[in-house]
Amino acid sequence: MSQDLNIQGLGVSEGIKLGKAFVYSPVRLEDVKDQKTDAPDMEAGLLHTAKAHCLADLDALVARANDILGEEKAVILKGQVSMLNDPSFFPPMEKLIHNEKWTAETAVRMVTIQTASIFESMPSEYMRERAADVRDVGSRLLMYVRGRQGSQLSDIQEEVIIVADDLSPSDTVQLDKQFVLGFVTRIGGKTSHTAILANSLGIAAILGAGSGIEQIKDGDMLAIDGATGVCIVNPDTKTIKDMREKMRLQEESRQQLLAYADKAAVTVDGFKVEIAANIGTPEEALGLLGTGAEAVGLYRTEFLFMSRSSMPDEETQFQAYKSAAEAMQGRPVIIRTLDIGGDKELPYLELPHELNPFLGYRAIRLCLDRPDLLVTQLRAILRASAYGNLKVMFPMISGLEEWRKAKGIFEEVREQLRLESIPMAEKIEVGIMIEIPSAALQADRFAKEVDFFSIGTNDLVQYTLAVDRMNEKVSYLYDYFHPAVIRLIKQVIDASDRHGKWTGMCGSMAGDPLAAPLLMGLGLHEWSMSPSAIQKIKRQIINLNRRDCQELAERILDMDTPAEVRKALEAYQK
Amino acid sequence: MSQDLNIQGLGVSEGIKLGKAFVYSPVRLEDVKDQKTDAPDMEAGLLHTAKAHCLADLDALVARANDILGEEKAVILKGQVSMLNDPSFFPPMEKLIHNEKWTAETAVRMVTIQTASIFESMPSEYMRERAADVRDVGSRLLMYVRGRQGSQLSDIQEEVIIVADDLSPSDTVQLDKQFVLGFVTRIGGKTSHTAILANSLGIAAILGAGSGIEQIKDGDMLAIDGATGVCIVNPDTKTIKDMREKMRLQEESRQQLLAYADKAAVTVDGFKVEIAANIGTPEEALGLLGTGAEAVGLYRTEFLFMSRSSMPDEETQFQAYKSAAEAMQGRPVIIRTLDIGGDKELPYLELPHELNPFLGYRAIRLCLDRPDLLVTQLRAILRASAYGNLKVMFPMISGLEEWRKAKGIFEEVREQLRLESIPMAEKIEVGIMIEIPSAALQADRFAKEVDFFSIGTNDLVQYTLAVDRMNEKVSYLYDYFHPAVIRLIKQVIDASDRHGKWTGMCGSMAGDPLAAPLLMGLGLHEWSMSPSAIQKIKRQIINLNRRDCQELAERILDMDTPAEVRKALEAYQK
Repeated sequence: MSQDLNIQGLGVSEGIKLGKAFVYSPVRLEDVKDQKTDAPDMEAGLLHTAKAHCLADLDALVARANDILGEEKAVILKGQVSMLNDPSFFPPMEKLIHNEKWTAETAVRMVTIQTASIFESMPSEYMRERAADVRDVGSRLLMYVRGRQGSQLSDIQEEVIIVADDLSPSDTVQLDKQFVLGFVTRIGGKTSHTAILANSLGIAAILGAGSGIEQIKDGDMLAIDGATGVCIVNPDTKTIKDMREKMRLQEESRQQLLAYADKAAVTVDGFKVEIAANIGTPEEALGLLGTGAEAVGLYRTEFLFMSRSSMPDEETQFQAYKSAAEAMQGRPVIIRTLDIGGDKELPYLELPHELNPFLGYRAIRLCLDRPDLLVTQLRAILRASAYGNLKVMFPMISGLEEWRKAKGIFEEVREQLRLESIPMAEKIEVGIMIEIPSAALQADRFAKEVDFFSIGTNDLVQYTLAVDRMNEKVSYLYDYFHPAVIRLIKQVIDASDRHGKWTGMCGSMAGDPLAAPLLMGLGLHEWSMSPSAIQKIKRQIINLNRRDCQELAERILDMDTPAEVRKALEAYQK
Repeated sequence: MSQDLNIQGLGVSEGIKLGKAFVYSPVRLEDVKDQKTDAPDMEAGLLHTAKAHCLADLDALVARANDILGEEKAVILKGQVSMLNDPSFFPPMEKLIHNEKWTAETAVRMVTIQTASIFESMPSEYMRERAADVRDVGSRLLMYVRGRQGSQLSDIQEEVIIVADDLSPSDTVQLDKQFVLGFVTRIGGKTSHTAILANSLGIAAILGAGSGIEQIKDGDMLAIDGATGVCIVNPDTKTIKDMREKMRLQEESRQQLLAYADKAAVTVDGFKVEIAANIGTPEEALGLLGTGAEAVGLYRTEFLFMSRSSMPDEETQFQAYKSAAEAMQGRPVIIRTLDIGGDKELPYLELPHELNPFLGYRAIRLCLDRPDLLVTQLRAILRASAYGNLKVMFPMISGLEEWRKAKGIFEEVREQLRLESIPMAEKIEVGIMIEIPSAALQADRFAKEVDFFSIGTNDLVQYTLAVDRMNEKVSYLYDYFHPAVIRLIKQVIDASDRHGKWTGMCGSMAGDPLAAPLLMGLGLHEWSMSPSAIQKIKRQIINLNRRDCQELAERILDMDTPAEVRKALEAYQK
């Protein structure tokens, strides 16, 4: 066997890559010495200029995050902007310069390290990870105070795999996919922002690889597998060959799947379902028809609200919804009204801090409390309905009262637009997300009044099992194959069938090939998923027999545990 | 009408009281002037002595909180002990004395105000309220540094109503119920610790009464109603007469209820249910038989774990469980195994910080991860079973796997005790809490294996509706009369009936008179509630006709909204 140096880390973002190591060593706060100044005004000037540069940088990064990475990541960076503007962060630096004559560098170091250490001393992993954000902002300030010294990621002009002690969120978002094949870091965990960012950028990444990486030198050849967390330094010819083969197989299977894009999702025995995509921006709708998506099953409008510093007005929203409608050329586009709150914040909307944000003030709860938001959004959607096939969906509905209130506002808005003689589609379907157990349990009641359901499995599972799936200590319990969840899904689909309505699903279960025979057996009508899953799911559905699936579903509904369900589905797949 | 000064605040703790005002003005951090010292060592000595006094005070207060106020309140005070021991709090004070020659008073003020201002600048209401805890600790330190100057609550030696700007949690816990009839404060909200503490102490309290209270002078006569938030200053004779009449009526109805203590809870048509009490300590079991409780439906063991600085050993637990068993003289006592985590912490058990603690690492999840805890507790329970009628109940069960694991550990422990020839009861029933929707949805499966269910409505409602009831922005949605919740309750009771098992309820719904006809109609077997509710519920059940209740329940199961359910129940009550 080979004599390569093998390093094992946490695989946090898939991808097999071969490339040269770029060892990244940024400016270090800890390296700044205590130094006093005779010219505090000049130092304060340096500090202010540096702050302006940082804000400009962060603005650009936020915009980039918005375009490429989606809401969650923009929020991380916006947190850094807030930090820079926080009265407990920047003003103390100024004071240290004016009152105690420290240099700007020293002042930045002192306040940053002190602030970070407050976070670091907290018992919580989450708060400790916020310390990285503080250091990130401080390092950026330091870099500009020094006139941009230090090895910068922007230096990279060829294909490399970055090796670093740690990558900050703002480092990560700066990475240019054209050149950065992947990265390996010494520290970091699965729930760190860096892991989340790597994933959405689609860059192969290994975190927490430990001190082994200190042996890697600039220019070393690396072979990394972002799924298994393996990093091989200076691999021998055989290893390289093996890796190339794996990469080839991955590419081959990607090509084979492409053939399914244009096929309809019809089972062997002739049952057709609709395959749709989840999107976050109208731009994503543009490439969608090529993937085989027959509809947009979930257009998350949060993104439009999060990517700016003030509320998007009716015209801005109208343009976005109109683009999505037009991009889909008459195919359905389900627009979900604002689902903000929980773990998603808006900089211009002051939301309360909550002990359990997932059980808090979010989505339709917020919109019914602030109907101005909903009215503006519904006006924009209704106006855009003249340009395609739009449907409206309300998130986080827990009871009929909420639905009726929201639907009432919808009707009022439509009436108002009629009075204004604004063109709209004749008929617009209005439905609800089923993501709270109470809504699933009352599906028979809702089915009389709504046009459709869309099951959001991610939240539905969280609430049904009382598990925050982002919480590593209990995420093992999070499982959409829990028989209780499957029973709820069945109740919802059956209720819609009985009342001549239809049920979709826009949670990640819909894009899981293992779940497909079960969902087919339960009679799911519309399947909405990440665009990358569409072809795989179509291929699978085309090979299913619906009657068999129904028998399978019957058996599964009679099972006790998620493990039994999984076993049955795995056996079925063979 | 009277010309009294009427002040309107938030009624946070019930009680109608008439008494003299005691205007409380504690030492104020803000009043401390900047002052340097020539004897830093002496100042540091003062500071250390003060810290020792504070820790002694807080220890005594924690013990008092444990005895009188229950777990939640002890936790608040323990947080203050941690703060005092936090490296970011006390050491910076020492540094300010030694390095910058500030006096101890000045150092305490600087660090306290700075630390509090960090909390206060946070956008979250919750974190802002933690600032009060910081100030509380700092003020206590200051008081001792000054050699205990300032108007102290311990000065109170007659019946008074306290009037203050604010009462800190440690102020509140010091209040002597013998003398303190109630209190009125300028600031404070419904979710503040002060409100929670007042409630559990049973002291009438009005918070957030605003600047009006500045007109109240020491010795003024006050009439307060802690339910409505009304505070009348120097009331006229008629107002005093009205208040006295209200107080008399309250006392009269209390006396009338006492007659129901000894009656059995049997409906007009002869259906008997068991009325049980929820307790937190074995001491509470002692007075229980007098209230009419026929069992302990929920013995919360957390308390035993929270009231000390290290894990209670098997012997300590055994003594506690044995006392409870003996106090109930052969009547059933259901011991719930450790339900820690979520909003309940243990000082000696490092729990992760969680973004959504209610969806996190708690109760049985923690115990299955740390089986040593469960084994010790089960050994203690099984040993105590020789002295009464004990049953065991596991909290937060979400699926059959968890139940089987926990039951397996129970069987192993029993086998081990048999090998050790330790006396135990022949048969011990083992059941589960139904407080997660998935468990309710699989009740038919569980009913084959468990001996009983106990529905914890508080959590079940939270998860079913995805609402944190402590969150003021959404607590309006929290309602156990939501038809979805009622459907789940029905599923659970029906499942237990079908398998010859029984279902209890230990959430607050069981103690709500409005809910009684519904729960009777659904067939609830055991009703466990706060001891203060027992007589009221017995009186009500004795006047119910079960067949009518069943019809009512049928009608309610067919309703759409909580409002309809409430209306039907209110109509039924008339």
